[in-house]
Amino acid sequence: MARKTPQQYIESLNDGRVTYWDGERIDDITTHPRFQVPLALTASDYDDGDPEVNEFRFYRDEEGNEHHRIFQIPTTKEHLVERVEMMKQTTIGTLVTGVFMALMSVKDDVAKVNPRYAHNIERIYKYARDNDLRGAEVITDPKGDRKRRANEQDDPDLYVRIVERREDGIVVRGAKLHITAASLVHELVVMPTKGMRPEEADYAVSFSIPVNTPGVSIINRSFAPAELNEFDYPASSHHSMPEGFVVFDDVFVPWDRVFLAGEVELASVLARSLGLWERTGGLVESVRNGELYIGLAQLVSEMQGKDKDPVVQSSLSELIVYQEMIRMGLDYACEHYETSQPSGMVFPNTLAVNATKYYLAANFHQTIKYLHDLAGGLVITVPMEADLRNEESGKFIRKYLYTRKDVDIEARMRVYNLIRDLTADAYGGWWFVVALQSGGGLPAQRTMMNRTFDMEKAKAAARKAAGIS
Amino acid sequence: MARKTPQQYIESLNDGRVTYWDGERIDDITTHPRFQVPLALTASDYDDGDPEVNEFRFYRDEEGNEHHRIFQIPTTKEHLVERVEMMKQTTIGTLVTGVFMALMSVKDDVAKVNPRYAHNIERIYKYARDNDLRGAEVITDPKGDRKRRANEQDDPDLYVRIVERREDGIVVRGAKLHITAASLVHELVVMPTKGMRPEEADYAVSFSIPVNTPGVSIINRSFAPAELNEFDYPASSHHSMPEGFVVFDDVFVPWDRVFLAGEVELASVLARSLGLWERTGGLVESVRNGELYIGLAQLVSEMQGKDKDPVVQSSLSELIVYQEMIRMGLDYACEHYETSQPSGMVFPNTLAVNATKYYLAANFHQTIKYLHDLAGGLVITVPMEADLRNEESGKFIRKYLYTRKDVDIEARMRVYNLIRDLTADAYGGWWFVVALQSGGGLPAQRTMMNRTFDMEKAKAAARKAAGIS
Amino acid sequence: MARKTPQQYIESLNDGRVTYWDGERIDDITTHPRFQVPLALTASDYDDGDPEVNEFRFYRDEEGNEHHRIFQIPTTKEHLVERVEMMKQTTIGTLVTGVFMALMSVKDDVAKVNPRYAHNIERIYKYARDNDLRGAEVITDPKGDRKRRANEQDDPDLYVRIVERREDGIVVRGAKLHITAASLVHELVVMPTKGMRPEEADYAVSFSIPVNTPGVSIINRSFAPAELNEFDYPASSHHSMPEGFVVFDDVFVPWDRVFLAGEVELASVLARSLGLWERTGGLVESVRNGELYIGLAQLVSEMQGKDKDPVVQSSLSELIVYQEMIRMGLDYACEHYETSQPSGMVFPNTLAVNATKYYLAANFHQTIKYLHDLAGGLVITVPMEADLRNEESGKFIRKYLYTRKDVDIEARMRVYNLIRDLTADAYGGWWFVVALQSGGGLPAQRTMMNRTFDMEKAKAAARKAAGIS
Amino acid sequence: MARKTPQQYIESLNDGRVTYWDGERIDDITTHPRFQVPLALTASDYDDGDPEVNEFRFYRDEEGNEHHRIFQIPTTKEHLVERVEMMKQTTIGTLVTGVFMALMSVKDDVAKVNPRYAHNIERIYKYARDNDLRGAEVITDPKGDRKRRANEQDDPDLYVRIVERREDGIVVRGAKLHITAASLVHELVVMPTKGMRPEEADYAVSFSIPVNTPGVSIINRSFAPAELNEFDYPASSHHSMPEGFVVFDDVFVPWDRVFLAGEVELASVLARSLGLWERTGGLVESVRNGELYIGLAQLVSEMQGKDKDPVVQSSLSELIVYQEMIRMGLDYACEHYETSQPSGMVFPNTLAVNATKYYLAANFHQTIKYLHDLAGGLVITVPMEADLRNEESGKFIRKYLYTRKDVDIEARMRVYNLIRDLTADAYGGWWFVVALQSGGGLPAQRTMMNRTFDMEKAKAAARKAAGIS
Repeated sequence: MARKTPQQYIESLNDGRVTYWDGERIDDITTHPRFQVPLALTASDYDDGDPEVNEFRFYRDEEGNEHHRIFQIPTTKEHLVERVEMMKQTTIGTLVTGVFMALMSVKDDVAKVNPRYAHNIERIYKYARDNDLRGAEVITDPKGDRKRRANEQDDPDLYVRIVERREDGIVVRGAKLHITAASLVHELVVMPTKGMRPEEADYAVSFSIPVNTPGVSIINRSFAPAELNEFDYPASSHHSMPEGFVVFDDVFVPWDRVFLAGEVELASVLARSLGLWERTGGLVESVRNGELYIGLAQLVSEMQGKDKDPVVQSSLSELIVYQEMIRMGLDYACEHYETSQPSGMVFPNTLAVNATKYYLAANFHQTIKYLHDLAGGLVITVPMEADLRNEESGKFIRKYLYTRKDVDIEARMRVYNLIRDLTADAYGGWWFVVALQSGGGLPAQRTMMNRTFDMEKAKAAARKAAGIS
Repeated sequence: MARKTPQQYIESLNDGRVTYWDGERIDDITTHPRFQVPLALTASDYDDGDPEVNEFRFYRDEEGNEHHRIFQIPTTKEHLVERVEMMKQTTIGTLVTGVFMALMSVKDDVAKVNPRYAHNIERIYKYARDNDLRGAEVITDPKGDRKRRANEQDDPDLYVRIVERREDGIVVRGAKLHITAASLVHELVVMPTKGMRPEEADYAVSFSIPVNTPGVSIINRSFAPAELNEFDYPASSHHSMPEGFVVFDDVFVPWDRVFLAGEVELASVLARSLGLWERTGGLVESVRNGELYIGLAQLVSEMQGKDKDPVVQSSLSELIVYQEMIRMGLDYACEHYETSQPSGMVFPNTLAVNATKYYLAANFHQTIKYLHDLAGGLVITVPMEADLRNEESGKFIRKYLYTRKDVDIEARMRVYNLIRDLTADAYGGWWFVVALQSGGGLPAQRTMMNRTFDMEKAKAAARKAAGIS
Repeated sequence: MARKTPQQYIESLNDGRVTYWDGERIDDITTHPRFQVPLALTASDYDDGDPEVNEFRFYRDEEGNEHHRIFQIPTTKEHLVERVEMMKQTTIGTLVTGVFMALMSVKDDVAKVNPRYAHNIERIYKYARDNDLRGAEVITDPKGDRKRRANEQDDPDLYVRIVERREDGIVVRGAKLHITAASLVHELVVMPTKGMRPEEADYAVSFSIPVNTPGVSIINRSFAPAELNEFDYPASSHHSMPEGFVVFDDVFVPWDRVFLAGEVELASVLARSLGLWERTGGLVESVRNGELYIGLAQLVSEMQGKDKDPVVQSSLSELIVYQEMIRMGLDYACEHYETSQPSGMVFPNTLAVNATKYYLAANFHQTIKYLHDLAGGLVITVPMEADLRNEESGKFIRKYLYTRKDVDIEARMRVYNLIRDLTADAYGGWWFVVALQSGGGLPAQRTMMNRTFDMEKAKAAARKAAGIS
Repeated sequence: MARKTPQQYIESLNDGRVTYWDGERIDDITTHPRFQVPLALTASDYDDGDPEVNEFRFYRDEEGNEHHRIFQIPTTKEHLVERVEMMKQTTIGTLVTGVFMALMSVKDDVAKVNPRYAHNIERIYKYARDNDLRGAEVITDPKGDRKRRANEQDDPDLYVRIVERREDGIVVRGAKLHITAASLVHELVVMPTKGMRPEEADYAVSFSIPVNTPGVSIINRSFAPAELNEFDYPASSHHSMPEGFVVFDDVFVPWDRVFLAGEVELASVLARSLGLWERTGGLVESVRNGELYIGLAQLVSEMQGKDKDPVVQSSLSELIVYQEMIRMGLDYACEHYETSQPSGMVFPNTLAVNATKYYLAANFHQTIKYLHDLAGGLVITVPMEADLRNEESGKFIRKYLYTRKDVDIEARMRVYNLIRDLTADAYGGWWFVVALQSGGGLPAQRTMMNRTFDMEKAKAAARKAAGIS
């Protein structure tokens, strides 16, 4: 059970899975043009033999076997720091696979209610780890009418539910939304979307199944158009990952893959197991992008000779403070890690992650405003590569986009294209929404943050300062 | 010289103009697929015989001839109000044609320096009006190194300039950026981008020429991909207009089409003539879109049954206050119009327009944040129409996007698509940049606003309150 | 029944009213030092014979009698504009007297339920008008536990209520908070604080009584310290008005002064009658202050020679846009006035006032930030007048606060003092809270604004744009 | 040379110093009522024998002598952390004494230019440490016209300068502004306010002198009124510290107290030595206050029974995220400390401190808005203690400020008073300005932050992402 090569990973996905895109049912995603960018992206995290990369990418388990670090159960601060470093250099299709480690973080709580579920969690974790598999975080139900609970909807299937309990397993029906990389992984790890009440027992369900299990269909959607150009789209030509609308149409799940089937008291435990790591991942991506925004703001200003302008400097400051506050919050979260007992697993500081993620989400739009202000109208009007390569029009473009001897015209165009691609085009729009919605939208993030703040301490300080005995 | 029909307008553009898109030189834009949406858009403002529309769209001049209202020289408040009403229902390809009226607004100042120029302005205005032509606002030069003036650049052509003065006219060379609808109009109305100093006399140049004049080339760019779908892109499938990178490669301009050729004292007069109207147009578009944002925020919330949620109401408030402040600022600008003498032309209140445009630009990004927060992740993950129409995947989509009996599934998908199209996709990204950059970027807009504020009055009030005699 | 002179007004307040301040029961406020500033303030709006002022301050009623314009029932746009102009030059003790006019605005609705109440409203209105009296807006109840309604509180008196109904009138008990100028007026005009339900009938009560009615006590509070200095406190030495904590300790109100006594359906009508005018008053005060902030920002920058600095200009822009948006919103509200039928009374546009007031409240703090940033540390460290007048220390102050020949040292000190007084001292702190809380706090203001927005129109526009039939 | 007791500290200030307040020259500040609060405040940091406090307050030097930790030269991360912990529990009059340690941090650089100055720095440091003295940071010059440099002002004394060089020392003239605690310390440690050019050699001056040196005068100013009440002013009745306007009227400074006298290359080294520590102090105070704001927001909401309201929770979130981001930034600054060579001194991470201080300053006003919104109008209208103690009025206050059985009336009043005192009164106004101005105003803070950001790394990342080789 060695690690897979990139090519082995790609081939392993030709397994009969049912996947749709642009209205087409795709029989083999590994050869379909639509999937080439995401496949290459996720494949790039497999072992390509680069020793320098392998250093941070893989770890050795207690028995001396080497696995991708996404599977490592952190039990020391160093593990946590190494994990975050690895995350900074890992693509989204692999990052979601952290779901197995997150499951392991609640294994002890699950064991108290039903040891068999805990056993299943451990088995599937090791199976995925040892076979170098990828798994998706399958959480968000369609939810129907938000004013009503799962069991009160007009259609009982608007939350994933158990429709039949058999001796050998359960049959589930429903759908899950926004499932990043669903078509690109091996396992769909299904969690409840929220805590459940006794009358919602059929909706308290969690399990992991292979993507090609009968009854599973995935409808894909991505910001990436069918054809991309590396010059015009420097970012999205390399980075795109479809989100899946995943349907479970009476899917049979054998008992040894079930983690929850009706014990409502565990629903919120499982629902929340992922949240902290998801938000941590949001911080990692923000730090990665934030440095780009600043570098681009500086480059685009320098290339126009206006980088010393005090108002330009002032806009740069807004980009820098945003980046630094998030970078420090992420660092703090690792530095002041928390430990869960009795497993001894460590995880990022909850309040630090929640507060920093909320800061990130609440300030993203206005921070990008400063980049847009600095960059100017060429962000949306810079000519396309095809016109640059056309000899007639290209000669004009080269002549008139000149600014100074030390500025290469194509480099200047690429800077504008990258700004547009990242912040003012389909990929940019995706980021605007993701910055807000990952981790649950602003109201949910506020709730998480407030809940983890030590309010009693603050009240005591206020009482003392007010002279209230 | 009757008004054109939509079809006559379209045919009139097959005139040999030199236009590029996607690296291709296009011989006849009227039949090229790339141009169909913008052509239909601009054509829709021509006379299609609808009497109700014609009511606000056309006006009768002093001699009783009817023309498009974009040509009307406002001399009363009613004219101004009618103009703004017309603008609200007019597409961008026509709105830019306001450039002729703007030129007329400085005719008197121009006459003082050179009556021939003023005469030319009037002639070209009447020619365009009487032939129902469209003209583009051709202003922004590439500018090269921003620290240096026009005559100090490495390449003297980085601002449009006169390279030769002949008995019958001038020869100009240079390029202009961000020229909205350049390929879709009849006349390119060129203005200096800013005031000029005596040593920049060759750069103090203004004129109007037909798009098919020899030496003119236009390289187009738009947010619209080659193929659009009305269901997936409800807005951009109908609304897109290429911006042109317009090149003047030693173009001859006869004297009777010249409005400025070296008289530097007029450069800033012409440069500024358009700004106020451009910013007014920005307000009009914002009011148009703002109502959509609010309506979409409400619809998307209602469709999920969460419109009564106090936090949802609070986000709605942010969208409403943004919309109302801009709507009122625009109204104020017309109500408290200004008049230029001796022409008697009226124009919107300068401070009102400048302050409102700055408010619009400075707050757009954070206002859209509230819409993104309300709308949720489906904005970027809702399945595409093709998957909806595919029988197999479509049945799942219909089942799981259900919320309540009174909510039509396709309507719900269209609402998500419109939010994405307007605020989180290529068109949305274009709006983010345009909100900031139209009217010149935040620093330029601040300068305009500060300059028009009555600071002496404020200082006097402060002095009095401070008890300073 | 002629108009009062300032002196007559002052004397009329020595009527036995029960008033407390600093723990002292004050028998005659007209001679007590604490009341001198507010007395002078309110007296300054009485007729001092200045014909220029009288022009906008007084109006002639249908019978040709002249009264203070605060009593004028606006029935035309001109009335409204004149009223707002008068408000701009009128002090708060007089402005609250608008309560009589507001009462008249709901007289017709009241008449439908009980003609006697309507009759009483008209009688008290004329009585106050003809005797040149002032009245306070007595609205906000203590409210106790906000989760419970009026009749559910531990102490039934936490909202003002009727404790006895007698043949000749009612007896009321309770308290009202934040009653501006309560001790400085003649009449306390009591309104319900909100709509009431049937079980809250005893709390649906409205009436007007003289301040010296037995059982009424007022506990005063103000930001103004006991002694003020005009140089050190240029604003608050002239402008302060105590807020009253007004207690009704089994106060008898004769029937002819009662406007509501149990008819719950009228409670919200009366409760809301004042809101719009209160918020309009907030806009007027903001416009008055806003001009000062800008003038001070400019003066303090000029006096240090840094007014041309681009970052200074950028901060000025934020002050200007805040001021202009509010000024335009107020103007729009008058321009697009509304009319109530059948009375024919006109009032400011509701949505305009609500949206502008919300903008004012939500952005006040951050706008003042820009003034604080421009002004620098001297705002809080500039020496006091006493030290300036001391010969030894004064000579140092004069020497070292010098900046340029054209800047007077004392003028410079006054500018810092006025900035501090208005934005960074007790009066300034009062403004921070008032900006937010007048008109009901941000959540209440959002509710008012959302309620008055035409949501159906916005939804229709969104539906059309989304292609939803 | 033992440590001083609080009483010994107080007595040591009766040394003939020349101090003014309210126009009065005060001969002995130790008995003057104006100085009682600041004296008690600073005295409270002296050794009062509490072993628990002494633990973090004092440290043992290399020779085993115990001193106040403000003098400790941090050379390890633990020192830094202990220092920050001590700072959190230390008053401002002691914190400014950090100036001696800051001086020591540049001793090595100073030695390179003039070893005698370095020797003086070490001597004065040890002298202050061993005698348990306090010293003020004396930096900001009046600066006159900001457009001109020190030597170009109309009056050459507008920056402190050397007017005479004698064999035994120098004579200086000028003034310094905003000198916190100047009258309450023993030594005035004077630094240049900025870098100086060769022609400004007389302005490149630094030294330390006792406050009672002939020619020194201090004009005091504070937000604290002459009389304070602990109930009405829970914070400022205990916390106020005058800022001094310090005049040097031809003051003689012997050579052994001089750290700089003309060597312009050292001016900016000394000018900047303090900045980082000043900004670190700003973070410490913000964290201290921030917890109070949150605790008060929660208490005031609970006491009204509205703490579960979602909009209240949303405002709380804004207070929490502000607090947490600053707290984490401060922690990061210690965790990722920097070291200066060859001294081995450690200091907080520069970028972390600069970015966090800028975040603090730029967001303070709008964060307080949320507290004001939560707290409501009673913040400014709650009756005063005297009225509460008056039996007649007090009984009404107790009755009507009741909310729930578990809420004590006086506690509730104290909560309102503390909110007002900290954010909406003279002390609160002082904080608004201090939050912005400490560390130099927003533009200066932006400059510091941008300068310390690793822009080359960001540019390289942007170039790589853009595909620029």
